[in-house]
Amino acid sequence: MRSCVFGRHSLRSGLSKSVRTGSELTDLRTQVWTRWIQTSSDKNSKGSNPQLAFPCLDKLEAKNEMLGRSQACFNDAGPSSLEAGPEPSYANVTTGFDVFKCKKPIFLDNGGYFPEYHIAYETWGSLNSDRSNAILIHTGLSASSHAKSQPRNAKPGWWENFIGPGKYIDTDKFFVICTNVLGGCYGSTGPSSKDPANNDYYATSFPIITVNDMVRAQRELVTQEFNIKKLHASVGASMGGMQSLAYAWEFPDEVENIISISGCARSHPYSIALRHTQRQVLMSDSNWNRGYYYGKIPPHIGMKLAREIATVTYRSGPEWEYRFGRNRADESKTPALCPDFLVETYLDHAGEKFCLEYDANSLLYISKAMDLFDLGSRNMEKALVRRRQAEQSYNSSNFIPQSAIPPEPYQDKNISKPTNPDESLADLRKGLEKIAHKKFLVIGVESDILFPVWQQREIAQVLQESNRGGDIRYFELGTDVSNYGHDTFLLRLDHIGDPVREFLLK
Amino acid sequence: MRSCVFGRHSLRSGLSKSVRTGSELTDLRTQVWTRWIQTSSDKNSKGSNPQLAFPCLDKLEAKNEMLGRSQACFNDAGPSSLEAGPEPSYANVTTGFDVFKCKKPIFLDNGGYFPEYHIAYETWGSLNSDRSNAILIHTGLSASSHAKSQPRNAKPGWWENFIGPGKYIDTDKFFVICTNVLGGCYGSTGPSSKDPANNDYYATSFPIITVNDMVRAQRELVTQEFNIKKLHASVGASMGGMQSLAYAWEFPDEVENIISISGCARSHPYSIALRHTQRQVLMSDSNWNRGYYYGKIPPHIGMKLAREIATVTYRSGPEWEYRFGRNRADESKTPALCPDFLVETYLDHAGEKFCLEYDANSLLYISKAMDLFDLGSRNMEKALVRRRQAEQSYNSSNFIPQSAIPPEPYQDKNISKPTNPDESLADLRKGLEKIAHKKFLVIGVESDILFPVWQQREIAQVLQESNRGGDIRYFELGTDVSNYGHDTFLLRLDHIGDPVREFLLK
Repeated sequence: MRSCVFGRHSLRSGLSKSVRTGSELTDLRTQVWTRWIQTSSDKNSKGSNPQLAFPCLDKLEAKNEMLGRSQACFNDAGPSSLEAGPEPSYANVTTGFDVFKCKKPIFLDNGGYFPEYHIAYETWGSLNSDRSNAILIHTGLSASSHAKSQPRNAKPGWWENFIGPGKYIDTDKFFVICTNVLGGCYGSTGPSSKDPANNDYYATSFPIITVNDMVRAQRELVTQEFNIKKLHASVGASMGGMQSLAYAWEFPDEVENIISISGCARSHPYSIALRHTQRQVLMSDSNWNRGYYYGKIPPHIGMKLAREIATVTYRSGPEWEYRFGRNRADESKTPALCPDFLVETYLDHAGEKFCLEYDANSLLYISKAMDLFDLGSRNMEKALVRRRQAEQSYNSSNFIPQSAIPPEPYQDKNISKPTNPDESLADLRKGLEKIAHKKFLVIGVESDILFPVWQQREIAQVLQESNRGGDIRYFELGTDVSNYGHDTFLLRLDHIGDPVREFLLK
Repeated sequence: MRSCVFGRHSLRSGLSKSVRTGSELTDLRTQVWTRWIQTSSDKNSKGSNPQLAFPCLDKLEAKNEMLGRSQACFNDAGPSSLEAGPEPSYANVTTGFDVFKCKKPIFLDNGGYFPEYHIAYETWGSLNSDRSNAILIHTGLSASSHAKSQPRNAKPGWWENFIGPGKYIDTDKFFVICTNVLGGCYGSTGPSSKDPANNDYYATSFPIITVNDMVRAQRELVTQEFNIKKLHASVGASMGGMQSLAYAWEFPDEVENIISISGCARSHPYSIALRHTQRQVLMSDSNWNRGYYYGKIPPHIGMKLAREIATVTYRSGPEWEYRFGRNRADESKTPALCPDFLVETYLDHAGEKFCLEYDANSLLYISKAMDLFDLGSRNMEKALVRRRQAEQSYNSSNFIPQSAIPPEPYQDKNISKPTNPDESLADLRKGLEKIAHKKFLVIGVESDILFPVWQQREIAQVLQESNRGGDIRYFELGTDVSNYGHDTFLLRLDHIGDPVREFLLK
């Protein structure tokens, strides 16, 4: 069993155990509730109106107390006491994968490096004799390598019905590989991994990574572990759609077909803003403790809130109009400041479900990697320079990791000058020229707020305008077909799947 | 001087005093910074990569320390010591208004009541002899009554160039009134006011209010203070656009013309979700303390984060593309998890600027009032029943405020059933029939994300379809005219102003 958040022995297994041993959570909630009723009656016995209730905060306080207790249990009794009993369900996503261990250092786009690193992966189907039928699937922000169930992990994967014998990505024909990205927490090297240099958790001494760093790490797996010279296809949606382009950009001769769904060629400031709010909310949870929470209570409240904000950006208004409308969770109750409308309880549950399932630091670093994504020529040139500098510095005799802490508090220069869209587009065109001769399928979804459809149109248009003989196909799902927004690739498999199948087999 | 957040004597005046007496904030930041560098070097001296820096958290910690000190100063020396020296600049918004004191109780749409209440207001222009030229301006969520400068407060108002002699709302012709809404913190009764029943801050014993409650309170001012039988117009944008419709709905014979800009006839679940995340983030700040922070350090971090999220919903992607693009605040620095791209420092500043300028509880209650807005027939009928029950209960001999705390922890019923858009639209049509014979100008902005343009189209369409002889005008600003999103009414006065002027004078 391996848990990404708390090292080898999971706080969550402690939690699961407590839940199994009785109705502790219910008891705790009742205690907190009773205390609060007493306090508030003392406080407001003579007010004009009754004190509002805050069931959502009672719940979080009870959870915090329970996580604290589980933690105390962990510290007092030692890890072995938690290993008895059945595996908690979440462990399914952290078992049943293989790990590629690369002992060679990797140098990063922003100047850091990893002396060695792990990439967790799973495969489906069989590699043919000339190793020409491999498809590399790239994941979105928080997904594991478990795209589909397999003998060592029977739990449905995140693209369960998209991949398989006779499915859109047909494992009777193709050998499919999916990895957990560099920076993730499901088996690949990430902030919750130990730094071999000092055997401490990386935490926020983990260097800033980019999407291009992720694909360079994946390429080592593809070439070293499988001896694959050329992928049949690089396929991904969301951040996976960034990676599929980035893989082609980094290794244009090592991939035949590129599929980018609900992705972009460079992150837009509005998407950056949306991710920024999630990161700031998470970092403001005092349990985050500047990234040093391993072995302590994790920032579960910050994670819950960040996920709620993210969920708003993953779906669309019309979907929620149909699904929730203005219905309240319980019409008989007085309106409340805690979740009240059905759409609020939905968000609350989405946050609650996620908050202990994923490592907070992984979320921060990968979210930041998405912001930094830009296949424009200037950005890619700078990255190359910094990577080379890091490598030269490492190979020189007096290597000292460069300090990221400036001697004085950082001051925003904040020189706001209007950007020039034409210049910026020309820079992107120059950046993408390198791969414009290849075969692309770009898919966009009109109801997507996070990666608006004009970003997918932009990819296709810029590639086409290069006139380098590429085969650029563009496919768009209108609001008549999907109102699922950014999550369409997980929810409208049929509409996404048909063009993908056709493109892969052509 | 009056501060809404901390009662009569402001914590902020303590802060201003500290800032005035020296470079205390800078000193504090340097101290925090030095401590952090020391801690992190101890922690990671041998790691592969340097520890990331968190200047944004250093800043918040320094601010927290300073607010704590100011608070200690406040408690030790007593309020009088803070009254020396010039007025801090924020005090401009809490002076120079009149207060209408209503001694009659008001009963609320969700069953609570106020035994008495205050409405702060300002006026411009002169009321004519037959009292027929009054225009009531309704504000958005966080605005004060200070829509425009006037002799008692020379600071520019939030609609400074929209109102005035010869302006779009011409004070040579009209008598303009603007109030601070019920629930606000700029002079009107809100959660930071004292409950006359026990002389304690209302805090979260403040009852849930609605937009319709707000306009019923305003109407007392209009009729009692000014003896106005009929307003020439009810005008507002954003939540003000809700109020202008609500005023007409509540008192159809007491208003001649209705202007609703970037408003809606009922809140959409997506807008509810966007406000939900802001409320939950704010309520998760431990300084919020379930609303009981008056006289303590206020939840400034939660407020900052809530405002950052709100700011994302107030503007649009294309505006930020042009304004910030993918520019970073300081290209020479390594990318950071703290604000880094220019759009991030913009959001950070927007949050920072707001976080002590507005009362956190006012934000929560008014944000909730917006969620609850629904002029559909079912909702309005229920509200009437609850209001009457509250009044009957109050007038009965054994009046006890109804408890809002259920005996057992609240459990979401969470019965998700698809809504029926036709039914829902029919309900809205039935609700709006009551006012469909009147004169309306509805303005929508295509780039608005928070109040999407189809909501303004809906108002106009539903009113027109009623065929009750109303004069329903609809005016829409496309993305060719404004990319300022929801904030267009504050930023494109020319395009909003011309149709408003014409409508008011017709």
